[in-house]
Amino acid sequence: MLGRLYATEDCSAARALELVGERWTLLILRDALFKHHTRFSQFQQGLAIAPNILTKRLADLVDNGILATRAAAGRPDHREYVLTEMGRTLKPVIIALTAWGDRWVRPGPAVFLHEDCGTELAPRFTCPHCDVTVEPTTIQAHPRSTRPTPT
Amino acid sequence: MLGRLYATEDCSAARALELVGERWTLLILRDALFKHHTRFSQFQQGLAIAPNILTKRLADLVDNGILATRAAAGRPDHREYVLTEMGRTLKPVIIALTAWGDRWVRPGPAVFLHEDCGTELAPRFTCPHCDVTVEPTTIQAHPRSTRPTPT
Repeated sequence: MLGRLYATEDCSAARALELVGERWTLLILRDALFKHHTRFSQFQQGLAIAPNILTKRLADLVDNGILATRAAAGRPDHREYVLTEMGRTLKPVIIALTAWGDRWVRPGPAVFLHEDCGTELAPRFTCPHCDVTVEPTTIQAHPRSTRPTPT
Repeated sequence: MLGRLYATEDCSAARALELVGERWTLLILRDALFKHHTRFSQFQQGLAIAPNILTKRLADLVDNGILATRAAAGRPDHREYVLTEMGRTLKPVIIALTAWGDRWVRPGPAVFLHEDCGTELAPRFTCPHCDVTVEPTTIQAHPRSTRPTPT
């Protein structure tokens, strides 16, 4: 029992979920990250989402700094939605979520490959101190303020 | 543009989100995974969640095979909620989500440590073929059915 490790209002996972945990929001981000969608019409076609909901979700993502808008190349009257660095760094979250779904629901139609060689990748934890692959069961949460010195 | 990489109804991330993407659900799982909570009263105190909502979320998690119930040790009239293997393997998802929130919202109060040595760990991708750490930007989604042979 770690006790009061984090107040609810203070937890990073909770705050991250507030920004990206809504189902449509994460599906929009998946399509932006892996299908390289940037246009309203691409998101709408890919997700079969109601236009008013898509409009709201895209606006929220822009307000939260995860997407940015710019004029489409060659079509200055059309707006494009592009991932910011904040948005691009969601890739590991989506890969981890997909890996779990692949294992426990059923294998999905996409695999994640290292573009240099085509090898399938899965999220892993490695310890730079011990130089080993770390099983998730041996990872523990600890209060940041009293974190121990590595031994 | 990867085209019709995955139908919405077929995507593992979407199906995973249906099981665990609700905010309270993921917070319950976080507390089960990292605070080792097993009792209704522990979850309720830790999350300040309405009892009727907690009851419903716990029941859904049990129905979906992510938690299992058993009689509490020494208190056979009390029920405990314990993570199944399906639930335990959500750890990388929550760590990835927290790492993103730590970077982009603000550092949360918890760090994830390798229990053997106390080193802080972050999710990484390593390519077993190239034997290198892989930047997320060089990971691409590819249809499972036509996945290339690694070069």
